[in-house]
Amino acid sequence: MAAAAAAAEQGVDAARKEEEEEQVVNPWEVSAGKGGIDYDKLVDQFGCQRIDDALVDRIARLTARPPHCFLRRGLFFAHRDLNEILDLYENGQKFYLYTGRGPSSEALHLGHLIPFMFTKYLQEAFKVPLVIQLTDDEKYLWKNLTIQESKRLARENAKDIIACGFDIERTFIFSDFSFVGGAFYENMMQVARCVTMNKAIGIFGFNLEDHIRKVSFPPVQAVPSFPSSFPHLFAGKDQLRCLIPCAIDQDPYFRMTRDVAPRIGYQKPSLIESRFFPALQGENTKMSASDANSAIYVTDSAKEIKTKVNKYAFSGGQDSIEFHRKLGANLDVDVPIKYLNFFLEDDDELAHIKKEYKEGRMLTGEVKQRLIAVLSEIVARHQRARAQVTEEMVDAFMAVRPLPNMFG
Amino acid sequence: MAAAAAAAEQGVDAARKEEEEEQVVNPWEVSAGKGGIDYDKLVDQFGCQRIDDALVDRIARLTARPPHCFLRRGLFFAHRDLNEILDLYENGQKFYLYTGRGPSSEALHLGHLIPFMFTKYLQEAFKVPLVIQLTDDEKYLWKNLTIQESKRLARENAKDIIACGFDIERTFIFSDFSFVGGAFYENMMQVARCVTMNKAIGIFGFNLEDHIRKVSFPPVQAVPSFPSSFPHLFAGKDQLRCLIPCAIDQDPYFRMTRDVAPRIGYQKPSLIESRFFPALQGENTKMSASDANSAIYVTDSAKEIKTKVNKYAFSGGQDSIEFHRKLGANLDVDVPIKYLNFFLEDDDELAHIKKEYKEGRMLTGEVKQRLIAVLSEIVARHQRARAQVTEEMVDAFMAVRPLPNMFG
Repeated sequence: MAAAAAAAEQGVDAARKEEEEEQVVNPWEVSAGKGGIDYDKLVDQFGCQRIDDALVDRIARLTARPPHCFLRRGLFFAHRDLNEILDLYENGQKFYLYTGRGPSSEALHLGHLIPFMFTKYLQEAFKVPLVIQLTDDEKYLWKNLTIQESKRLARENAKDIIACGFDIERTFIFSDFSFVGGAFYENMMQVARCVTMNKAIGIFGFNLEDHIRKVSFPPVQAVPSFPSSFPHLFAGKDQLRCLIPCAIDQDPYFRMTRDVAPRIGYQKPSLIESRFFPALQGENTKMSASDANSAIYVTDSAKEIKTKVNKYAFSGGQDSIEFHRKLGANLDVDVPIKYLNFFLEDDDELAHIKKEYKEGRMLTGEVKQRLIAVLSEIVARHQRARAQVTEEMVDAFMAVRPLPNMFG
Repeated sequence: MAAAAAAAEQGVDAARKEEEEEQVVNPWEVSAGKGGIDYDKLVDQFGCQRIDDALVDRIARLTARPPHCFLRRGLFFAHRDLNEILDLYENGQKFYLYTGRGPSSEALHLGHLIPFMFTKYLQEAFKVPLVIQLTDDEKYLWKNLTIQESKRLARENAKDIIACGFDIERTFIFSDFSFVGGAFYENMMQVARCVTMNKAIGIFGFNLEDHIRKVSFPPVQAVPSFPSSFPHLFAGKDQLRCLIPCAIDQDPYFRMTRDVAPRIGYQKPSLIESRFFPALQGENTKMSASDANSAIYVTDSAKEIKTKVNKYAFSGGQDSIEFHRKLGANLDVDVPIKYLNFFLEDDDELAHIKKEYKEGRMLTGEVKQRLIAVLSEIVARHQRARAQVTEEMVDAFMAVRPLPNMFG
């Protein structure tokens, strides 16, 4: 019997490919090979660079603060030209951050928050401006949504993003339907003129029965990498560098962007790229919008979190207490440990739990209990923050305005 | 020796195809078969309708004025659903006009003016609003221009268009680089979602080495057909009908538009379509930007017009006066007669010239002399009008503003 290969997903709803051995990672599809996502292979295949300890140390030194746990635990594990950004930063030259989200659903799950949590850390640590793109046009084009619904979802998602704690003095949030035009549109055309259909098909895997906007969407995600797309923010700063924190499935967009940039007189954006956040059922399963039990949503109650973790989080522990005490847990497949790896900030406690669990002294139930506490606190904190986000705050973050203190 | 097949062109710079028998007509290429453009075949191939005398009479009756000579002489010869527009008009329901130009060059030739002269007549006769699109993004994408140069050409061309005498109370001129965004962009996305790459390739003849924006440009030209693209003009009038005067090479855009319209809840635009304006060297040659002697430009001096007509306008007269007196002229290939057919307004005088020339009593030189006088007057009038067009007038026509008297 062939093992069903499955897909992990973060930030996009990937089509699941059953029975497929080859791993496929692009912005619309993340399907693992038989043994799960092979990140090493991905780095080589995409041609990006690994983040090593020296680079993490350098970031800590330059920002004079401990590196974010996503960084020191290798969850953001790959980059492109991050050293160039840091070289310039060390010489007093700032950069700007660019991240985004495709607003395909109302409720975000924890995986969706990862890039925003990390971006918030980068913004605070480097004291740099940030642009956040909500690709409501993309979701309209790919999903069976109306334009009104896409725009509504973009605003709802903006509230969750704002709830992550971004500094309004340094942050501009925009949706494509509200912002495309002017210099942004001009840059879209400049990028589009440099990419043939054959090339786009090669990078993104489109086919000729796809509609015509799919093949020409990538420039929309590319151009926030160029400061001249935001004349209200970066007038006269056309060579300002851009750093993009994102999950590695977005790399194809920025491979294309980096290929085009020098041909139109712009700097290549740098990237810092994360692994995928696993579904509750394990790394080789998919977080699915149609299966609420596959993920922890930021709207879940404490009770739902408790039930989901206890009932669905895949355990690497043994079947009986007796065996578990004897053999210990397999941490490589254990979802509670993977989740704690993202969200338990205390390194010592995390190391302790891993050791105890691995050696059978700690039981799955105990690990899950700790995870439930950690997730409940994060989700409750997010819910409290989101409840404070008013329509006026959304308007304020999305206002096309200068940010006089963004480098301050 | 194979006769070289040649291309006629109006409003676009078509690639010339030598030695080709099949006629090709699309927005980027107009190449005639061996015997010149076969307009009957084109009407059947495109599936549009012929304009007959009854339809011309109906327009005259409804507008209470004689039909424009372009109409009564069959130069605008084909249409799509023009009767529907007229049925509604007869019942007191107005429509709006939409035409445009790709600003690929600074100097317009007389062929470029045809749709604008005719649209001005329609605007005056029906007392309806008009939107004029300058596709500077298209010309940037297709030609080797900078964005700045495309935008500059759009403004320069706008001056020539304004010089045609459009009513500022009923006319909105816009360029894509200045106007794309908002509701217009939303409509672009709605159209794009309905057209597959295969379909666009089938309609427009793109190939996979074309850049990605070519295949997705057609929605940009499609959406001015929908009133909701102009909320500042047509808010609450989403079902207002649109009539598009254009040369028939633009038909593929609007075949696509009409196919998509009902699927997104919009009315199909109606069309009224013209033949191509011939080059001086004859109907089977091409007006070329690189050969100033192939066309009369609106910037030509009286002396240049005289030289061009005398030296280059292809004559259907006989080689010697003796033969000419005996055999008369072949009007079917005679360029001065074709040009007079467009621009000599007096029907009786035109009929007289044709008869005398055809029967050998009038010589080519005499016909050319009359044509020189007619063209010189038109061009001089245009030059006087254009000299009056200020930058402020361009700004006024291109201002995004309501037109409170547009139906008045």
